[in-house]
Amino acid sequence: MTIESDIKKFQAEFNQTLAELFQQIPADRSPILHQAMLYSLTNGGKRVRPYLMSLVAQALGISTQTIIPAAIALECIHSYSLVHDDLPAMDDDDLRRGKPTCHIEFDEATAILAGDALQTLAYETIANAGVNDSIKVNWIKELSRHAGYYGMCSGQALDLAAENSQISLAELEKIHHLKTGALLRAAVSLACLAKPDLPAEHMKQFDEFAQQLGLAFQIQDDILDVTASTEALGKPQGSDEKLNKSTYPGLLGLEQAIEKAEQVYQSALEQIRDLPYNTQSLFNFARFIVQRQH
Amino acid sequence: MTIESDIKKFQAEFNQTLAELFQQIPADRSPILHQAMLYSLTNGGKRVRPYLMSLVAQALGISTQTIIPAAIALECIHSYSLVHDDLPAMDDDDLRRGKPTCHIEFDEATAILAGDALQTLAYETIANAGVNDSIKVNWIKELSRHAGYYGMCSGQALDLAAENSQISLAELEKIHHLKTGALLRAAVSLACLAKPDLPAEHMKQFDEFAQQLGLAFQIQDDILDVTASTEALGKPQGSDEKLNKSTYPGLLGLEQAIEKAEQVYQSALEQIRDLPYNTQSLFNFARFIVQRQH
Repeated sequence: MTIESDIKKFQAEFNQTLAELFQQIPADRSPILHQAMLYSLTNGGKRVRPYLMSLVAQALGISTQTIIPAAIALECIHSYSLVHDDLPAMDDDDLRRGKPTCHIEFDEATAILAGDALQTLAYETIANAGVNDSIKVNWIKELSRHAGYYGMCSGQALDLAAENSQISLAELEKIHHLKTGALLRAAVSLACLAKPDLPAEHMKQFDEFAQQLGLAFQIQDDILDVTASTEALGKPQGSDEKLNKSTYPGLLGLEQAIEKAEQVYQSALEQIRDLPYNTQSLFNFARFIVQRQH
Repeated sequence: MTIESDIKKFQAEFNQTLAELFQQIPADRSPILHQAMLYSLTNGGKRVRPYLMSLVAQALGISTQTIIPAAIALECIHSYSLVHDDLPAMDDDDLRRGKPTCHIEFDEATAILAGDALQTLAYETIANAGVNDSIKVNWIKELSRHAGYYGMCSGQALDLAAENSQISLAELEKIHHLKTGALLRAAVSLACLAKPDLPAEHMKQFDEFAQQLGLAFQIQDDILDVTASTEALGKPQGSDEKLNKSTYPGLLGLEQAIEKAEQVYQSALEQIRDLPYNTQSLFNFARFIVQRQH
């Protein structure tokens, strides 16, 4: 099976799981909020983080069933962050994956609340997962650290502050490390935490892999914003330039940015090459990340 | 000691705890976000929920030390909800407790992110608390249920939808039950959950007490919006009317609203009167709630 078809299969199953989750949540509290949460969570997302989590779990011999609640939680966090990032006061985007963003489809207040409630749902889902309490607590420690002030939220704050200003490559890496990298790291470490007897050294190697992969992912994202069409992206092409955002192609030139993506990709592979697990699917996924065209 | 001085003492200690917590969070990720979170969390709040939690703990023989992480988490949730509620797309308030609201002091994007990161901090604080994992998981289940779609977020969504329209008393009660009531219930139940051997029946009585108390709190809030001065409130007097919000005085008339607050207060006391704990301080607190002038 090619990685593309494997991802498609995973997406279909994961979307089914989300649909079932929402069927269990009665719409009667606030039908609009219920709709806006579901809309945002099922808005054509590629499920990159849950899929990555499932690959690490597979490599470690952990069942997908075990890590699904953590995967849902992570996707709720990712989804809420997109809803809030798209708001007029933030990136002011009308389109996301070819569809109206939440505040366009509903309204700003509903989008703020849907994001808020999706974040809550993340922690609620883990607290109600079918694993022991120790794993749940470790998951919540890890997820909250990567999602909050120590990770994603600060990344977004730095990203906004850097608009309309020239920043250094080191500053750009810090932003992406926090903004995009944090949740990809969380994907890998949440899977690792489902195996409590995993040696700390192996967990560290997986984490280094995740950090390099996150960087490769972001560089490729910046490259695609320059090279891909609006249609392929599902959002306006050149939107980084429009916002005067510093990007890898902007700082390094397109050719060197492509080269850097390749270097970082190779470095990611190095981190896990000697691990005593079948990491072939992670290698394939990493290549897929740096070669994707949308 | 009068309840007023007891609350003041608790506030001072609790604020000290929050200040220490923030000293441990390095500002280097995003100094602005760090500032905005601290500003919002220490913006002169009355600490009603943490104080209520401490009174229930006291009645049950649980140390304040034990429940402090849950109290901090609850206050983080309350604080984030105020920051988001004050946004232009929501209630559009410039003043909160006599000081500029977060999006006025900083900017809208920072306020959205500060709210988001405060919510994350709530769950992170519980996950890192010094109690056993079972209590942590129960706290997170309970807090997330009251704070998210099942509680506060839906309350706010319904409240916004009800602006500029005439709603029934039953609808108004549903809104307040979710919007204000949920976090007061959480205060009481989080304290109860710190005592795992508490009989389910007693927990239910405490919960009924919390529900009635929450309603009394909200009716008094509506009354004060009509009768108190802008100076005493720390926010513009008459702001409910400005937003065409349905209120108890609006639906019942001022005199009957005052009467209803008294009835609900008596009903709250009834719920816990026969419990085998020293609930005198909870009685005093309930009276304080319905008699407060700001």
